[in-house]
Amino acid sequence: MNNLAAKPVTNLEPSKLAMVPFVSVDNMMKIVNTIGASKMIAEIASYIESDFLRWESFDKTPRVASHSKEGVIELMPTSDGETYGFKYVNGHPANMARGFQTVTAFGVLARVDNGYPVLLSEMTILTALRTAATSSLVAKYLAPEGSKTMAMIGNGAQCEFQALAFQEVVGIDTVRLYDVDPEATVKAAANLANSGLKVIACKSSQEAVSGADIITTCTADKLCATILTDNMVGSGVHINAIGGDCPGKTELHKDILLRSDIFVEYPPQTRIEGEIQQLDDDHAVTEIWEVMSGKAEGRTSPEQITLFDSVGFATEDFSALRYVRDQLERTGHFVELDMLADPDDPRDLFGMVRRADTAAD
Amino acid sequence: MNNLAAKPVTNLEPSKLAMVPFVSVDNMMKIVNTIGASKMIAEIASYIESDFLRWESFDKTPRVASHSKEGVIELMPTSDGETYGFKYVNGHPANMARGFQTVTAFGVLARVDNGYPVLLSEMTILTALRTAATSSLVAKYLAPEGSKTMAMIGNGAQCEFQALAFQEVVGIDTVRLYDVDPEATVKAAANLANSGLKVIACKSSQEAVSGADIITTCTADKLCATILTDNMVGSGVHINAIGGDCPGKTELHKDILLRSDIFVEYPPQTRIEGEIQQLDDDHAVTEIWEVMSGKAEGRTSPEQITLFDSVGFATEDFSALRYVRDQLERTGHFVELDMLADPDDPRDLFGMVRRADTAAD
Repeated sequence: MNNLAAKPVTNLEPSKLAMVPFVSVDNMMKIVNTIGASKMIAEIASYIESDFLRWESFDKTPRVASHSKEGVIELMPTSDGETYGFKYVNGHPANMARGFQTVTAFGVLARVDNGYPVLLSEMTILTALRTAATSSLVAKYLAPEGSKTMAMIGNGAQCEFQALAFQEVVGIDTVRLYDVDPEATVKAAANLANSGLKVIACKSSQEAVSGADIITTCTADKLCATILTDNMVGSGVHINAIGGDCPGKTELHKDILLRSDIFVEYPPQTRIEGEIQQLDDDHAVTEIWEVMSGKAEGRTSPEQITLFDSVGFATEDFSALRYVRDQLERTGHFVELDMLADPDDPRDLFGMVRRADTAAD
Repeated sequence: MNNLAAKPVTNLEPSKLAMVPFVSVDNMMKIVNTIGASKMIAEIASYIESDFLRWESFDKTPRVASHSKEGVIELMPTSDGETYGFKYVNGHPANMARGFQTVTAFGVLARVDNGYPVLLSEMTILTALRTAATSSLVAKYLAPEGSKTMAMIGNGAQCEFQALAFQEVVGIDTVRLYDVDPEATVKAAANLANSGLKVIACKSSQEAVSGADIITTCTADKLCATILTDNMVGSGVHINAIGGDCPGKTELHKDILLRSDIFVEYPPQTRIEGEIQQLDDDHAVTEIWEVMSGKAEGRTSPEQITLFDSVGFATEDFSALRYVRDQLERTGHFVELDMLADPDDPRDLFGMVRRADTAAD
């Protein structure tokens, strides 16, 4: 480690603030395993809920995307006026075949009053946790009462996190798995073997959705796909649509959307990236923060099809980073990075650099 | 350090790519002191020049700013189609009085083809170097031939870097310093004592600009200020205006702008942030990349007043990060951070987290 600048420390407060706590992948795994994945997801869900409940206090902006033929790199900033956060995240559908993660991410929190970063964290694992937390939190408001069975179409990197989230937050006891690649289902079933969930591997998506109260779609195709067709969806289910999350990438047949009541995170972003990119720009949708705060109705009847058209929004990452920051002292799983120059005299940046040389001689 | 995930490494290439080289403040100081500040600034200037010469290949966007009453936090992304880069930077004028840096920054480079970050670097020091590199590079094209004397109004954190840059890249031999705070001038003069430059501390900005071929203004006031009035600027000088770099923050009297030929980095950003926010939106300006590539004229007569209205653009940070990445192997001054999750099977993120727990038992 190179934590300490080679200079006498004469002003302790800024020197301490100039160090930025960093949560590596290894330390994030330690945090997850210390707290327990299910419990951690539920706790992140409560942070996300509390931030949705103060939705209007956030500075919201659609993500800043840099598209290429291979994929996209995005920056997702937000601020609540006291803390600023952003996530760097890529999405490269061809990565998996080359042995890379489709999505990798890291994030930063900073103090608004002086602009100093206060946390740098890996967010590949954390994004999986916060996505599962958001899905289950929303389902708590929208899924049919007493939901016990969830169909999961797409058994990739997000699958097990979703299953545990719905078990912990919604109370399901059964998952019905299907993936076009049977090996993905075998992997997910093996990982969930000791979860307490009843795990049923299915041979088709039709079989998977049979008898399900909740349907989660989470596939990684970039192209417009039809994972669910209209005749597969009966009345009274809740659909948790995660995979349709960028322009040109959808999973549901348009007819399902037209039969559903649709709930979204942030309409300006979802209309570009979500399932509703298939619909007219003025198709009615309900913002999920309004349901949580009682300003809008969620599920109003047992027959209704509710659809959460999830694309992932910056405030959810902000909530997850806030949660991680609050665990640092308790778990101790972080290191400090010497990321911010901190001269004794803020005007004397040059002198600090020169004195470092003298000190090293 | 927590560099190594607690899992068997069975796929070497992605594991290596999952580690991100990190240049801390301490290591950046070592790089500067190994290469030498003047030489490093000149080398960064040549990277900036080569990127300006391929200006049209960059994906350009104005910075994404989050303003608060205390200051601003900005993300500055760009891409050349092969490499993506962004800088996080804050600007908080009240910070200095509280013992914090007015500006702190860090930056990231990533591969466009798979979205994986390949460098994380402190940029508080690097921004000072790249700003000086850009100023001196532009002056090489615009300053009067044979310029030997530079007036420097504002002797804060950027001052010495600018002085060394103009010595190395433009060939000046004398600096005339002035700051409203005499201690800042004493600090800068002391830091430049062994630079080979003749350093003259002046009692007023009038005295400082007397006989100068180049005038650099670099003060940190957020308010509209008038560091230079019209009668202080004679014909034939080059003005390097650095401090006017955000809405409401300018340093030059409008009349000077009207007598000058104005050169800028990226007009959509400069019209909001630069000195020219004082002028009409259609006031003629020349883009500096056009001068460098021979598409537009720079200085055309000895009497002309040329003005570089500098606000700092994302491509300059990109160039500086490219330079730092190219020095890593040569200098060895970096550590590797475990920032990217890298499961053996990209679909098995959950299994990786669970196996880390087993391995730790």
